[in-house]
Amino acid sequence: MKELIGSPGTLSGLVLRLGQCGFAAASIGVMASAAGFSSYTAFCYLIASMGLQMLWSFGLACLDIYALRRNRDLQNPVLVSLFVVGDWNSSYFNTTCNYCPYVTAMLSLAAACSSAGVTVLYVRDLNFCRAQDHLLCGRFEISVVLAFITWALIAISSHVMFWILASV
Amino acid sequence: MKELIGSPGTLSGLVLRLGQCGFAAASIGVMASAAGFSSYTAFCYLIASMGLQMLWSFGLACLDIYALRRNRDLQNPVLVSLFVVGDWNSSYFNTTCNYCPYVTAMLSLAAACSSAGVTVLYVRDLNFCRAQDHLLCGRFEISVVLAFITWALIAISSHVMFWILASV
Repeated sequence: MKELIGSPGTLSGLVLRLGQCGFAAASIGVMASAAGFSSYTAFCYLIASMGLQMLWSFGLACLDIYALRRNRDLQNPVLVSLFVVGDWNSSYFNTTCNYCPYVTAMLSLAAACSSAGVTVLYVRDLNFCRAQDHLLCGRFEISVVLAFITWALIAISSHVMFWILASV
Repeated sequence: MKELIGSPGTLSGLVLRLGQCGFAAASIGVMASAAGFSSYTAFCYLIASMGLQMLWSFGLACLDIYALRRNRDLQNPVLVSLFVVGDWNSSYFNTTCNYCPYVTAMLSLAAACSSAGVTVLYVRDLNFCRAQDHLLCGRFEISVVLAFITWALIAISSHVMFWILASV
């Protein structure tokens, strides 16, 4: 199997997963700190989608750490056969579900875009943000930008996973 | 090369492309018929994105028709060598750009979601549609649904193209 940047079980993959997790958490944090977000369906969906993404990325990051440790063990060849690694690899692929990154990438893009639509409507189209001081538009904007960064990282990840799936 | 449903130069591919083109055109038509859509950034973006999609799908449909005609000529073997077909296939792939469906699928999803965010905000969150009669919320909703159908067709198309690209 080719070693692609961001493929599961590599250091770049771990960094990617931790980045996804971190940006998703930041997006949730900023959005949750803006009072009154819960009356907007799009913002609630953003939090739900980013929450799912955070949990999923965290799970994958844990698997990556486990894989990296196994590989370190492999360099001191003690009772570890290639067969076990091959078998473990296939089960890793089955458990993490090859289409999942594709689906979560779409969910995150949908959440980020619907929230961006509402934010742009408030900030530019209706000028609600200037008229009503209680709306924390700045936080909405930051949260949407963080969600887009999360989506970009997931898109890279899903692209790599799909490439591996197709080339296996 | 494997023959996948919806791959370029097949009848299923042509139907898929015409479907994309038709639903995109319907989405633009319904949205454009709703007065006052132009004051919303998200709806303008929807029209721009669906317009791009329509032109691109129409171009691909024309190429599919050309390919289907060439294949019919092939069945009466007159002066057509396999080399020419192979060469023509590779130039077809180069000209239509393998990553383009992937990018247009993302653009359509982004447009559909941002418009859906604004529509849901108006219909459910703020109850603007009941309060203000001049807003044609029904047309906004139909247009968004048509945009989502277009996106689903493009997603199938881009999936097939990416699969072909990865397996070549």
